[in-house]
Amino acid sequence: MEASQIYSAELLNRFCNRAFEKFGFSKDESEIITDVLLLSDLYGIESHGMQRLIRYHKGIEKGMIKVAAKAETIFETPVSAVIDGHDGMGQLISYAAMETAIAKAKTSGMATVTVRNSNHFGIAGYYAKMASDQGLIGLAMTNSEAIMVPTYGRLAMLGSNPIAIAAPAKPYPFLFDASTTVVTRGKLEIYNKQEQALPMGWALDAKGHDTTDAADVLKNIVGKKGGGIMPLGGSEEISGSHKGYGFGMICELFCSILSMGLTSNHTHLNNKGGTCHGFIAINPGIFGDAQGIEEHFSTFLQELRDSDKAQGQTRIYTHGEKEVEAYQDRIQNGIPVLKNTLHEIQELCNYLNIDFQEYFGRIEDETKHKSFY
Amino acid sequence: MEASQIYSAELLNRFCNRAFEKFGFSKDESEIITDVLLLSDLYGIESHGMQRLIRYHKGIEKGMIKVAAKAETIFETPVSAVIDGHDGMGQLISYAAMETAIAKAKTSGMATVTVRNSNHFGIAGYYAKMASDQGLIGLAMTNSEAIMVPTYGRLAMLGSNPIAIAAPAKPYPFLFDASTTVVTRGKLEIYNKQEQALPMGWALDAKGHDTTDAADVLKNIVGKKGGGIMPLGGSEEISGSHKGYGFGMICELFCSILSMGLTSNHTHLNNKGGTCHGFIAINPGIFGDAQGIEEHFSTFLQELRDSDKAQGQTRIYTHGEKEVEAYQDRIQNGIPVLKNTLHEIQELCNYLNIDFQEYFGRIEDETKHKSFY
Repeated sequence: MEASQIYSAELLNRFCNRAFEKFGFSKDESEIITDVLLLSDLYGIESHGMQRLIRYHKGIEKGMIKVAAKAETIFETPVSAVIDGHDGMGQLISYAAMETAIAKAKTSGMATVTVRNSNHFGIAGYYAKMASDQGLIGLAMTNSEAIMVPTYGRLAMLGSNPIAIAAPAKPYPFLFDASTTVVTRGKLEIYNKQEQALPMGWALDAKGHDTTDAADVLKNIVGKKGGGIMPLGGSEEISGSHKGYGFGMICELFCSILSMGLTSNHTHLNNKGGTCHGFIAINPGIFGDAQGIEEHFSTFLQELRDSDKAQGQTRIYTHGEKEVEAYQDRIQNGIPVLKNTLHEIQELCNYLNIDFQEYFGRIEDETKHKSFY
Repeated sequence: MEASQIYSAELLNRFCNRAFEKFGFSKDESEIITDVLLLSDLYGIESHGMQRLIRYHKGIEKGMIKVAAKAETIFETPVSAVIDGHDGMGQLISYAAMETAIAKAKTSGMATVTVRNSNHFGIAGYYAKMASDQGLIGLAMTNSEAIMVPTYGRLAMLGSNPIAIAAPAKPYPFLFDASTTVVTRGKLEIYNKQEQALPMGWALDAKGHDTTDAADVLKNIVGKKGGGIMPLGGSEEISGSHKGYGFGMICELFCSILSMGLTSNHTHLNNKGGTCHGFIAINPGIFGDAQGIEEHFSTFLQELRDSDKAQGQTRIYTHGEKEVEAYQDRIQNGIPVLKNTLHEIQELCNYLNIDFQEYFGRIEDETKHKSFY
């Protein structure tokens, strides 16, 4: 357990808005970016929340993320749009793209919007949920820096390539959001910090052999020296490696292929992000009784939760359930921010000329607390 | 290696057409069913080809499959349709449903067709490929008899729930078709026949424990006694079990939920199939330059095939490549039919009053060939 300090969502919200305005984003833009980041923290997905601030800062500094960029719709029909993000902030491009998909789905029944020349957009689930919040089915996908090694390969050629889908249901929407790799790079970073051996089947070394050495894999990914993370299903066809690789290809198709953008293996080279996204919205009304469909789905989800558990297990989760529980807990009890992240934010505050202590107080001396860990 | 005899695709085609006409299907209907079955054999997916004849026969005998049923469109918009199959033959309902999706996508840009009250439809890839053969992107999904145990459960609640996607590319279309379970029931049947232990993480026994006993799992599935096959990603979240379960849920959503049909856990009870399907067709022209998109995709697929191989591996496959190679081989050299299947076909011929030997000659005495195995 890493040391952390707890802050209210309201305070983190105020801080993030201030920071993004200082970067040069408008008030409205800062609110959108902050909302995406904080939903991730509220859902307990720290890897895509406040922790990312420093990486966005670096992206802006290097010119990979252009603060003033305006996304441009370069082709559209009543059921589709192709958007060029012109290297802007991923959250802003993606929020607008999903709004477009939703508006078109409300008019035409369903719509697909594909995006090129964007940047990291946070959690895919945020955009899928935008649709389900309005009674629609939403899908969101993104490619990324190459990290997934195709089955029987030894070079990372696809991204973590998450696919998220949300659909209205009671007591809360169905929300599935998962990378198509067996794990994300963030998980490898945690194993590395804790000097823990990776489970077999997660990653390959530079020569294409199964490895348990997280540090080596991460170093090779950054240096593009070979190796990487395996698809969902591991390294062999016997455990379904080709299936995870195939789901990663579906993501690539809707993101980089349909947008004529950069495939994962060509992104993040020479200070160019080039990330691509795909968004789909479907109005369940085009199948007749939207209300009846929501009830039918809610019944099935409840049957899943109620069905017999494996010995030693007490719950079967449906997708989105853990996120809702984390959200309720963190709205009430606050969000833990890792001290490591606080130190990064402190440096960011110096850079942006923001009074760190006004928001975060003092970072408590970790040595004082050693006995707790 | 099980004993088999080899027949030409042309002969098997003639035989299947004759058999389905004898069951009472029209000439046109018999051609569609045969085409779906034989593509599976030509692709080397024997589990969904000729081997299935006996199961379709049983389904028709029991009244689960109604030969005379006519599918009915019960709701539609320019981008959607809901079809009630009225318990007809899955291939006929699905062929018509995908034709509807394709026609609507040609007019409206994209379309989703969802189907309830159908039966086993063969390989999902057949229908996805119908779209890519006409320059569109096609998706096909189906639920099935419950066989997938949700993460931390011990009862099968979802089907094998395959998702297939096809998209135009050169030198051959991209075609991904995979169950969202780690393996299919057919694979368990092969392990059982060969009295081989299952790899850990494939299946659960009736109490929800990992098991390697294929016979026990199959017996429990049929008897609905608990246990079943794990999602892609195995039995634990650490290997991504919740992801395979989530992809299975996407399939269920487009099949049984949007059609207001039976979810997998309610199908195949009391002589009622109730299988549901989902079909999506997307015209790449709605993203601008369909030809350019196909070339862009073909380039990425070639980059994947050309990328460095893991040590000991000679090829990285893209999805659909193995199927095309199997097809070319089998069109030229014929299709092996297992002797076990031939014996079943012989019985079927007696039932349908077809001269078995006219098509298949004699089943050679296996004892004579023992030395070959």
